[in-house]
Amino acid sequence: MKKIEHIGIAVKDLEEANKTYKALLGAEHYKTEKVGSEGVSTSFFKIGDSKIELLAATNAESPIAKFIAKRGEGIHHLAFAVDNIEAEIKRLQTEGFVLLNDAPKKGADNKMIAFLHPKSSNGVLVELCQEIIPSQEFAEKKGL
Amino acid sequence: MKKIEHIGIAVKDLEEANKTYKALLGAEHYKTEKVGSEGVSTSFFKIGDSKIELLAATNAESPIAKFIAKRGEGIHHLAFAVDNIEAEIKRLQTEGFVLLNDAPKKGADNKMIAFLHPKSSNGVLVELCQEIIPSQEFAEKKGL
Repeated sequence: MKKIEHIGIAVKDLEEANKTYKALLGAEHYKTEKVGSEGVSTSFFKIGDSKIELLAATNAESPIAKFIAKRGEGIHHLAFAVDNIEAEIKRLQTEGFVLLNDAPKKGADNKMIAFLHPKSSNGVLVELCQEIIPSQEFAEKKGL
Repeated sequence: MKKIEHIGIAVKDLEEANKTYKALLGAEHYKTEKVGSEGVSTSFFKIGDSKIELLAATNAESPIAKFIAKRGEGIHHLAFAVDNIEAEIKRLQTEGFVLLNDAPKKGADNKMIAFLHPKSSNGVLVELCQEIIPSQEFAEKKGL
């Protein structure tokens, strides 16, 4: 694990939360992105060497909608940057952690991602993420 | 706000959680500390330019005991490093945030700290923290 890549925060209204976090952090979000497969709209703020990712549900089946229905708004996950996500998944499985994804999947912000089950890490939903470099993306599209 | 100073994670058993986070992060915690006024034992892990702080209750009245009783183990707070905590408290109050501490208090890890009410920040308990420099501590002890 190299660093905290981002903190994901589940919010009800992305536009209102963008205003709140602009006031809190003293700077605007620098991008927004929809991840259809996860049913979320996201916005990103830079803070030091890390990011804050706000997540709002785009439909009632979204994991974010379910999280908010159960626990209210708040911190949803903690994401660490890794150099080699496949090696890290194997290392953590060997250590006894339960992975929610055996293989990395495409996430927001140009990342390959995988989640650990919170029961493995004291109730914290941990995300691993590895930046996709252009040649890697090209190879994936080509099925190489 | 300069950076994410640390993420505070509420755990039931500090010794067990230290083993889990050593396995997760690939490195040992580098220090432990008791904060009697908050009823907590803490341990710290370095991760990039930030820290993970594990918090276990030392008595049933501790905010960490109450948090775990209500929500289970998990992320308790998100702490940002600031250069001037008093100025930041005033700035945030002007922006409409509700502060749990009008004035900074002494926290763990040689910091002056203050918390924002989670209702101000989408359910996230936000901590501000400013490193205590030796001359400042000396001045405080002397009541200067």
